[in-house]
Amino acid sequence: MKKILVLGAGRSATTLIDYLITNSEENNWFVTVGDFSVELAEESVGNSEKAKAIFFNVTDDNQRREEIRNSDIVVSMLPARMHFLVAEDCVNLKKNLVTASYVSDELRQLNEKAKQSGVLLLNEIGLDPGIDHMSAMQLIDEIKEKGGELTSFKSFCGGLVHPDYDHNPWNYKFTWNPRNVVLAGQGTAQYIKKGKYKYIPYTKLFERTECMNILDVGEFEGYANRDSLSYRDSYGLENIPTIFRGTLRKKGFCKSWNMFVQLGMTDDTYSVENSENLTYREFTNLFFPYNNKLTVEQKFCNYLNVSNNSDEFKKAEWMGIFSKNIIGIEKSTPAKILQKITEEKWTLSKEDRDMVVMQHQFEYLLDSETKKINSSLVVFGDNQRDTAMAKTVGLPVAIATKLILNGEIKSIGVQIPTTKDIYNPVLKELSGNGINFIEEEIS
Amino acid sequence: MKKILVLGAGRSATTLIDYLITNSEENNWFVTVGDFSVELAEESVGNSEKAKAIFFNVTDDNQRREEIRNSDIVVSMLPARMHFLVAEDCVNLKKNLVTASYVSDELRQLNEKAKQSGVLLLNEIGLDPGIDHMSAMQLIDEIKEKGGELTSFKSFCGGLVHPDYDHNPWNYKFTWNPRNVVLAGQGTAQYIKKGKYKYIPYTKLFERTECMNILDVGEFEGYANRDSLSYRDSYGLENIPTIFRGTLRKKGFCKSWNMFVQLGMTDDTYSVENSENLTYREFTNLFFPYNNKLTVEQKFCNYLNVSNNSDEFKKAEWMGIFSKNIIGIEKSTPAKILQKITEEKWTLSKEDRDMVVMQHQFEYLLDSETKKINSSLVVFGDNQRDTAMAKTVGLPVAIATKLILNGEIKSIGVQIPTTKDIYNPVLKELSGNGINFIEEEIS
Repeated sequence: MKKILVLGAGRSATTLIDYLITNSEENNWFVTVGDFSVELAEESVGNSEKAKAIFFNVTDDNQRREEIRNSDIVVSMLPARMHFLVAEDCVNLKKNLVTASYVSDELRQLNEKAKQSGVLLLNEIGLDPGIDHMSAMQLIDEIKEKGGELTSFKSFCGGLVHPDYDHNPWNYKFTWNPRNVVLAGQGTAQYIKKGKYKYIPYTKLFERTECMNILDVGEFEGYANRDSLSYRDSYGLENIPTIFRGTLRKKGFCKSWNMFVQLGMTDDTYSVENSENLTYREFTNLFFPYNNKLTVEQKFCNYLNVSNNSDEFKKAEWMGIFSKNIIGIEKSTPAKILQKITEEKWTLSKEDRDMVVMQHQFEYLLDSETKKINSSLVVFGDNQRDTAMAKTVGLPVAIATKLILNGEIKSIGVQIPTTKDIYNPVLKELSGNGINFIEEEIS
Repeated sequence: MKKILVLGAGRSATTLIDYLITNSEENNWFVTVGDFSVELAEESVGNSEKAKAIFFNVTDDNQRREEIRNSDIVVSMLPARMHFLVAEDCVNLKKNLVTASYVSDELRQLNEKAKQSGVLLLNEIGLDPGIDHMSAMQLIDEIKEKGGELTSFKSFCGGLVHPDYDHNPWNYKFTWNPRNVVLAGQGTAQYIKKGKYKYIPYTKLFERTECMNILDVGEFEGYANRDSLSYRDSYGLENIPTIFRGTLRKKGFCKSWNMFVQLGMTDDTYSVENSENLTYREFTNLFFPYNNKLTVEQKFCNYLNVSNNSDEFKKAEWMGIFSKNIIGIEKSTPAKILQKITEEKWTLSKEDRDMVVMQHQFEYLLDSETKKINSSLVVFGDNQRDTAMAKTVGLPVAIATKLILNGEIKSIGVQIPTTKDIYNPVLKELSGNGINFIEEEIS
């Protein structure tokens, strides 16, 4: 019997744990799920005889080492900053590890030691990062193998609402960590186009979007991710003239969100005076020059140069930023206040279903001809628990775990799934689970 | 004989050292000037018999303590981050200390110990901070003493070019640390107006300026300083409804500088790829969407929505941002590149003279009547060495040093010059040296 230790039973782990338990009989696995909330862990394993739930405190060195020692493989769905502790023990105790998080600089330094110990630390094998790497690399390798020369690679991904449940004026709800959505894009986005480096400061980010239609799910816009350039090395595209990665929203979102950015509502660096007792309306008024003759709505329209008939104004009003609700959070930053306001409107209800959308856009030269291919993925959530996000993050992690246990993935060291030995079998099984990319040649 | 130790002989110390040497005979002083550059120290003392220059390394604990032990008072014109080392020794060795820098949190913690040792650590007694505190507090105390109730206090200060030498289209040259000017305003400015807190994010800062005429030196605009609110406590104005502090530029400056801010050229958080080999023109082009049909000038005008006949465009062009000069600095941030570009145009030439301008604007209620007073200061530099900046920073430091040695200032502990015992005699002697505020009642 192979013992699998899953650390973290949060909402991105549901599909993963279900898969491992469902396949435990056939593969002779036993699954231990550890979480700081033992209730959450218990809920995730249900009454399976092939699994148990335990209280798990990652900072308890003894417990962590003991549980890792007693397992054959470790899957960590803990917050990314905690992975290093787990990874270090895995190397020392010669256990393979799978995570869906970005490889940190700290973790990368375990590469040599992991190799010496014959251990695989496989990371970035969720959705984004994860499915993006695998699906892009499969096409990149195909194009290269038939003699094509890649000239442009753009890739977009977003977590959104299922079209049938998408009824609010922003065409958006939180399907992932709301704080990260509110803070998204701060800093400077970097990319390269036709050999020219390009830098977009945060305050222009939501104005410089790319528009696209994706399959039959509608019109989208993508704003640039902070880091597109490092993908050149990861994907073996060192000399590609154009590379761009972006985040998808439905058409019209960015222009409206940009109003909050321009006002300063996404700032997380200072506390608003007396934030606890302010109304949302008073919060909004903090960002305008003093004027006691105009309403807050009028100041908003003047300051941002929008009309009170515009979609943008209506979206802002719908969001509640002019309401007299009390903030009620002490010493809060503008970003935390905006998070509270938006969570009241953008939290998925019990009936809602989510959607994950990804599109890669390739351009390449083959026999002196320019070719264009779009490769697109749409995944719908089934319900509040089995979300598209949980499926697309959890399934590749689960499948990789199986392939490592079966000996089909043999790599060692710190890895991400950009090589055939990993992406081919994982993508194949994802496809059997309804996670399929659709390729379209663009003329 | 009283021994004065001056640490730091940079360009803000010239007037200070001249004053101390000039008055050394009469007061029976001996002045030791220490600097890491012994040449700089020697130049500052000239061939005076009442002074000597020494090599001084502030991080050499033995030397620092030895020199402080051998002195009767210490004046530190070192960079602000070095003051704590000096201040700690001064407290231990029971020597008074004078600086022109803001009190750091670290330094503030020496207050109790300084008081127990009977030592005065007098800070913020240069121009801004310094003359601003003293001149504002003198009027605030006068208004309070005659029964007035302050309702608004605004205060502006700027270092600029003498009007007779002010011939460039920006009406600006660097009279102080260029790096600080390029980075000025980053973060969020906070102030209060008629009881309402107001927050200005950096990207709106240079649009939300206040205009004013000052005496006969022209039209100015002031942009908000980051911190206006803490002056309520320092000035005993805890309940004042309006308080605002700002930085002065000549009219039209901010709108043009804002173009660089909007483009992202003042960002100091990342390095530009291949910065060493780029031209200024290529640097500018980094911030526009890719377009190989338009010139960089056309992209600039489209992106910022300015015409190529506008003053703003002409100022940008004059600055050289479209030139083919090579940057020549490896791994440089946008802000460092912009500093290099602007230094080529905004460095004071040997013939130039500078100017310091300050204005306080008071509103108060007296016998149910609203009164307004402006109090303004204009100081001109004499030449490249005896700048307005060196005079206004150095003279109050020098005068305070004399008053402490003479026993006229008796305070102990960590102090700033907001009390009468300090500001009255210092302002009186400044006035004798041509540093005079002009008060105007505004109807």
